Amino acid sequence: MLKFEEYVEMANRAVAAIEYPAQPSGLYEPVAYAMSLGGKRLRPVLALMACDAFAGSPDRAIDAAVGIELYHNFTLLHDDVMDRADMRRGHPTVHVKWNENTAILSGDAMLTMAGQYMARTPADVLPRVLDVFNRTAMEVYEGQQYDVDFESRNDVSEDEYIGMIRLKTSVLLGCACKVGALIGGADMPAADALYNYGCDLGLAFQLQDDWLDVYGDPETFGKEIGGDIANNKKTYMLINAIASASGDDAKELDRWLADNEPSHRAGKIAGVRGVYDRLGISEKAEKAIARYTWQSLEWLDSVKMDEDAVVAFRDFATMLLSRKK
Amino acid sequence: MLKFEEYVEMANRAVAAIEYPAQPSGLYEPVAYAMSLGGKRLRPVLALMACDAFAGSPDRAIDAAVGIELYHNFTLLHDDVMDRADMRRGHPTVHVKWNENTAILSGDAMLTMAGQYMARTPADVLPRVLDVFNRTAMEVYEGQQYDVDFESRNDVSEDEYIGMIRLKTSVLLGCACKVGALIGGADMPAADALYNYGCDLGLAFQLQDDWLDVYGDPETFGKEIGGDIANNKKTYMLINAIASASGDDAKELDRWLADNEPSHRAGKIAGVRGVYDRLGISEKAEKAIARYTWQSLEWLDSVKMDEDAVVAFRDFATMLLSRKK
Repeated sequence: MLKFEEYVEMANRAVAAIEYPAQPSGLYEPVAYAMSLGGKRLRPVLALMACDAFAGSPDRAIDAAVGIELYHNFTLLHDDVMDRADMRRGHPTVHVKWNENTAILSGDAMLTMAGQYMARTPADVLPRVLDVFNRTAMEVYEGQQYDVDFESRNDVSEDEYIGMIRLKTSVLLGCACKVGALIGGADMPAADALYNYGCDLGLAFQLQDDWLDVYGDPETFGKEIGGDIANNKKTYMLINAIASASGDDAKELDRWLADNEPSHRAGKIAGVRGVYDRLGISEKAEKAIARYTWQSLEWLDSVKMDEDAVVAFRDFATMLLSRKK
Repeated sequence: MLKFEEYVEMANRAVAAIEYPAQPSGLYEPVAYAMSLGGKRLRPVLALMACDAFAGSPDRAIDAAVGIELYHNFTLLHDDVMDRADMRRGHPTVHVKWNENTAILSGDAMLTMAGQYMARTPADVLPRVLDVFNRTAMEVYEGQQYDVDFESRNDVSEDEYIGMIRLKTSVLLGCACKVGALIGGADMPAADALYNYGCDLGLAFQLQDDWLDVYGDPETFGKEIGGDIANNKKTYMLINAIASASGDDAKELDRWLADNEPSHRAGKIAGVRGVYDRLGISEKAEKAIARYTWQSLEWLDSVKMDEDAVVAFRDFATMLLSRKK
């Protein structure tokens, strides 16, 4: 097994090596731009690690790793259009830098390019790899749809929320693990166990994202603290607060949820955070993060692989969950 | 070989048999709706015919046929968003009936579903089938981008225009033929010849569409006559008129292109048509349609297949080009 940074370097090199036709530039420049914005390359790294764990080399999974990263960035591109988000990783989004039609069409092209890279998978495992990749892609859309549906509901349960983020975020981490494992020659039980590792890790990751928005260190957190609160985003924190608040806390929460006056933003963030504090939402979230992390690591025990591979996946989880942004 | 209507019936049955998960309904209902609007099912029919011509049965290509039809309808769905088109086949478009975000996300789901159906292709030809399908999909986006680019140019040449419609429209007909042929067991030269048949036929088809917008019979033409003229759409007709008009004709054409006053619509259509008449644009288009049709049929001579298969592809071309809508 390589070091984490070496897998990242390998993923970055492969992404940088994607060849885009020169023409029509209106189609391909936005794709190249979206892929150049960086990101942590977590999904390709997982695919490479999983392949390495079974094949003794990550190389066979490099195309699939790029395909999954193309897919991930396609979802970000179209999500940014749907969310009217202006910035992504410190740069203007494609629909802002170009326009909305360009973002739609270039996103479509990225999705098909993802399919092209996935199709370069060795023929012996190609049907199985496409099966998990395509099924995962459908689940990601389902998660996005549930996320939209939840916006207009105030009675979303914790289970529903976990189900939604599992689809929207987690399964793609699981897919990266499973695809890498299958390409590396793993049998289905081992590939499925790594899939579950990735999914549970993804849940912990997303819950931590929700937590960081409220309790993160503004110095090290990548984005502004409190954005989710300001936007009434139905996070793990808010859903649990709505479910458990009563009396004055419930009234204060309702009042802040109805108050979208921009000049009240700081007060709203502090106020909602105060409600969270009194309800112990931070501890509840931290416990859930720990539980999913633990569950995630448990899956590794059922996979027959070298101890250094197990260590690598454990370290990946530790690294991911100790992030400050 | 079956009768044309039998292939259509087979394609319609397979499209109607697509199973959509019940939830989230906000994602899948628009997909089911888009697939229920009908259409001529030309692409799946070509795939089934091509498979039948080599395998002696169309069955093996049914999933790929559905995949190509899903892909085609996905492009219509996203194109309608980009064109702000309100109606499709006499029904409100998805972004009108639901909203734009729904149209984007449901379209994405259709593209992935297309990939799922393509992936059901027998494993022995799967890599080759995915290769032509994915490459074609990329070309369709390129064609769409060139179409957009041409909107802001007044010097588009006939060659550029043909290149654009080849990408945007024709290659998918070629792809349907090639995929069906490969699944049916055709060798690559035969599959490529049928691909070229489909492409050239697609060019004739699109040029006829351009011609019908001006000279079609309002009684039998599916849409209103003159829509392209009213919208200054860069069709084969307009591009050739711009290139060949001089003196008063050029002045009149310029005047109409600058006049987008809705109440002048009828006058504009009649006026531009008058310019086309004086410049012989109708005859030029009819000659081009005949030339691409002839080229298309020529390809059939180089394919080793039963005479009744050749007849079926010839009849398909005749049927397609005698259409009134």
